[in-house]
Formats: sequence, structure tokens, C-alpha cells
Amino acid sequence: MDSVKIGIDLYGGDNAPHSVVEGVLFALKNKFLSPEELVLVGNEISKEDLDKISNLKIVPAKNSVSNETKPTEVLKLKESSMYVGCEMLKNKELNAFVSAGNTGALLSSGTFVAGRLPGIKRPALVLALPSKSNKPKILVDAGANAEVKAEHFYDFAREGIAYAKFLNLENPRVGILNIGSEDEKGNSIVREASNLLKEEKTFNYVGYVEARELFDDTCDIIVTDGFTGNNVLKTMEGTAYFILHELKETIKKGGLFTKLGALFLKGSLKSLVSKIDYRSYGGTFFLGVNGVLVKAHGSSDAEAIANALYVSYRAAKFDLIKKIEI
Amino acid sequence: MDSVKIGIDLYGGDNAPHSVVEGVLFALKNKFLSPEELVLVGNEISKEDLDKISNLKIVPAKNSVSNETKPTEVLKLKESSMYVGCEMLKNKELNAFVSAGNTGALLSSGTFVAGRLPGIKRPALVLALPSKSNKPKILVDAGANAEVKAEHFYDFAREGIAYAKFLNLENPRVGILNIGSEDEKGNSIVREASNLLKEEKTFNYVGYVEARELFDDTCDIIVTDGFTGNNVLKTMEGTAYFILHELKETIKKGGLFTKLGALFLKGSLKSLVSKIDYRSYGGTFFLGVNGVLVKAHGSSDAEAIANALYVSYRAAKFDLIKKIEI
Repeated sequence: MDSVKIGIDLYGGDNAPHSVVEGVLFALKNKFLSPEELVLVGNEISKEDLDKISNLKIVPAKNSVSNETKPTEVLKLKESSMYVGCEMLKNKELNAFVSAGNTGALLSSGTFVAGRLPGIKRPALVLALPSKSNKPKILVDAGANAEVKAEHFYDFAREGIAYAKFLNLENPRVGILNIGSEDEKGNSIVREASNLLKEEKTFNYVGYVEARELFDDTCDIIVTDGFTGNNVLKTMEGTAYFILHELKETIKKGGLFTKLGALFLKGSLKSLVSKIDYRSYGGTFFLGVNGVLVKAHGSSDAEAIANALYVSYRAAKFDLIKKIEI
Repeated sequence: MDSVKIGIDLYGGDNAPHSVVEGVLFALKNKFLSPEELVLVGNEISKEDLDKISNLKIVPAKNSVSNETKPTEVLKLKESSMYVGCEMLKNKELNAFVSAGNTGALLSSGTFVAGRLPGIKRPALVLALPSKSNKPKILVDAGANAEVKAEHFYDFAREGIAYAKFLNLENPRVGILNIGSEDEKGNSIVREASNLLKEEKTFNYVGYVEARELFDDTCDIIVTDGFTGNNVLKTMEGTAYFILHELKETIKKGGLFTKLGALFLKGSLKSLVSKIDYRSYGGTFFLGVNGVLVKAHGSSDAEAIANALYVSYRAAKFDLIKKIEI
């Protein structure tokens, strides 16, 4: 794709709209995006902030989606920035749209306003986890579909494979998350899904993988339902912070050498935990909808917003969406 | 309960029967169990090992359950140590039975040979996780029931509450694992289960908890289906080992101070990881069946077997099973 337009939800995020304006400025300065490539969705903004981004296209939209807005409600809020942004995706006025707002509302706008890609029943949240081999490990679905059927695993695999191509993973191996590697393990949905993926010869399907191998090089894409995927993600986060907490306690009680050791390793430990905390990632892709849709974390600061804009820009340039339409 | 009989599966575990014999000796010596309290289920044993435990009651049984035995197959292996042990539980010849053998086969023998307690549809694996406050955090179901209905959460809660009493947790708070705290979050099973637990006034039900709070003091018992529970457990394990791996890498590449820091903190880090690795726990209770049934880890050494025997002994003395029959 030659020229791309990336929309950003002015009202998404705990510190919006100010954080979004700062994020846009950060992206222009540090990520080398040009003002022509960015579109601000929302116009209720301070005079001061407005002056800073006067060279950008601004599309009027209302600040009407809050953290309390239910996923179904947003579909009635047709003047909200989320609705307007997703409608622009659908109409190809935008190639990508980034929001740090209410996740449920964004998934709902993406699915029903931007609309699903042909042949896709279930768009999903797709995330790249760290791994021991330093190759990214892709998790689909990270939380969009709490209720699934076996056939939806087929969509999840397609979405994961497209994302793997974007990340330069060749012939990516697809595994299904299960509680054992034997055929009879797990529940009926997982077993049926496994048979479906086996049948699709274009997939490099490697069978079941277990959560204890999450960070090992046993596959590139882990497919699971959104309920399990989201629990796995939050368990990773909880465990990492628990380890950090326990280490701090040990250090508090420890002698001089323990305290020295902690001092020397402090930086390494912190960077490790932030590597595991998915909230520190730039953004999560909601793949399977008409256009690149990226959810940035609610507490995103300027740099996080800029990262999400940049990754959306790259995905749009790569034509990520086309890669799903096998 | 005054006098108790604890059975041990001679053939369970990767290093059985030798590890089991050593475990029994360890328990007699270090855990102050008496020979009258222990029963060895299985008699195919070396003369040398036999001599060491000649003061114990030995019940003949065959070594016919392997790691490949399917859960349904064990029900036909009526002379196997697992079947015989569970039958003795049912007949009250044993108050507790410990096995480090095939998990699926043990769950099946427990459910269908020992049999379920009156009013219990789904026995479950119950595990105590560590927590920031150093109070144990109980997880039910840790992997027995991959396919559940909402009503089974009621059984899981009862099993968790009984275990909480055993661990001296007063008026334990019950939470359901979900991917958000709002009423509409999760799947239909979880939402229906939440309504069921709300209705049971004897439960101290606190609503939904998220996996990122696993180690926080937000509840005492986390109830979930066995598929999610097992994935959560293995994610904890995978994350802990990943952090250890990454730290080692950082240290390898780091300078003198980093290496010194690592040296000073090595012990603390290792003990932390083993705290999170559920495989290092003495044993996991399979609650809801007729008698105390404990699964020790397959790779159990003598000390792990002795720990499992001791915890079973204490649970039998406490009459843990009676606490489930509200």
C-alpha cells in the first residue's frame, strides 16, 4: 500500500484527550510519521492542544464512550469517536484506527461498524508474547471471544498466520492450547477444533501445546478461546508481579549481600517484568475486521500512543488485512 | 478421627516402586508416622526393599497402570494398585490413599471406584497456591473437569471451603475466575455459576476475580473450570521459569556487578520459582470422593512422597471429607 491514513481516537484512554495529542506529536517527531498520514477522530480539544496539531486532519466526533459503556450501547452512539473511526475504516477513508478506549466497546464497533472480513465469523485479539528464543509468540484469541465454537478456531488460526507473516515468521507453526498433549485431552471444543485444523492442509498445524511451554519454541501461534487466552495473559502478568513482590520482600529481610545483589539486578528485573506485562506493549491487534484496528492500553502515555500509531502504520503498509483473506 | 490408615500406591511415579519405599521410610523417620498408620498397596518389590519395610501391612496388587493407561481403562484393571487402593477407600479400610501415578487414571478410579460423596456431582483437584500475604490461596478445579456446567461450580465451592477449613482459613471468601469484574463479563457458564453462588447464603461469595489478582488478598478460594484452572497453573509455572531463564541470559551478558548481584540473589530466586511450581508441592487433593485422595507428582522423590503421606494423614485426622458434607 502506497499512502496510508491512520486514525486515532481522541477520547480513548485514561488521560485523553491530552495524552492522545501528545502521542501524536511524539509519533510525528520520533516515529517519522507525516501529518498527512494521521487523522484525529474527535474535535473537542483545548485551544492550546489544537494549536500544536493544526497541520492534522481532524474529523468531528463526540466524547460519548466511557469505560462504563456496554459493548452493545456503542452501536447507538453514532457520533462517538469510536463509531466514527470504525465507520471510516469500513469506508476505506482510514486504513487503520487506533483507540486506547473501552475494549468491549471497541471490539463491538470493530465487528459491527467496520464489519468483518469476508469469510471471517470471529475477529480476535492477537498479541505477540515474548519467548525464550526471542522470536515473538503469537496468542489468538487474547480476550475478544469468551464464548466460542470449534469452527472459530479456524478463523483464529487464519488471523494468527496473517500476523505471523507481518512479523516475518516463515511457515508459522500453529498449536492449540490444551491441558495435555494426548488426543483425548481437553474439552470437546478443543478436540473438534484440532480435527478441523488438521484437515486444513495450508496450515502448519502441530497439535496441542501446553501453557507451561508458552515461552518455548514449540510453535509460533497459540490458538485458544478468548476466555482462556485472557486468563493466560493475566496469569502471566500476575505471576511476574508476584515474583517481583516476593523478591522485594526477600531483599527487605536479607543481609547486606542480598541487598547489594538486588541493587545490581534491579534494572534487569524491572525490564523483564515489563516484557511480560502485556499492558506495556504498544497495542493489540483486533484482526478479522475491515481494516487495521489496534487497541492501545487505557493507561497509554504519549510514547505508548506513538508506538501503537507506528505499528498500525506498518501493518497498513504491509496490507495485513489482505493476508487474512487467503 | 482417632486412628487412621493411609494407603500408598507402590507403583505410582517415575521412580516407583523404589521411590515409594524410600518415601515411606522417610515418612516413618521424619514425619513421625507409625508403621500401623501406613499400608502399602502393591507387593511386587525387591527383596532388599521388602526387608526395609517388613513391619508394614502390604496389600497385594498389580503394577498394571502406566502413563499410557486411559482413564476409562483403569476401571477394568481391578487388580491394579490404583483400583485396589480406591476400593479400600470406599470400604473404609483406608482413610486416605496417595498415588504419584497417572493423573487421569487416578481421577477416574477416585470417581468411579472410591465413588463420589453424597450430593457431589463433580470431585475436583484442589490446590493451595502461594500469595503475597502468605496466606494460601485455594484453586478449584486445577484440572480434573475439562468440561463443566454452571451447577458444578457449586460443588467446586464446597470442596474449596472444606479445604480452606483444613488450612485454618476462617469464613473463607469464594470468588469465580473471570476475565473482568463486571456482571456481563465472561461466558454464559461463568455468569450462571455466579448467580448460583450468590443464592447460596452459607457461601461468602465475593463475585468475580481476575487472574492478575491470583496472588492478591481479594479472596481465599478461586473457583473455575478444570480446563481454565489447569491452564492458569501451567502458565504460572511457564512464566516463573521464563523469568528465571531471562535472568540467566541477562547475567551471562552482564558485567561484573550484574554477575555479583546474581550470585547474591541466586538462592532467593530459586526458592521463589519452586514456590510457584506446583509440581514441587507435596500433593494435590482430589476432593469430593469417598475418602482422602491425594495425587503426588509423578517425579516425586522420597521427601515428596513423605510430604504427601503426611498431608494425607493430617487431612484424614481432620476428617476433611466430612467437612464437604455440609
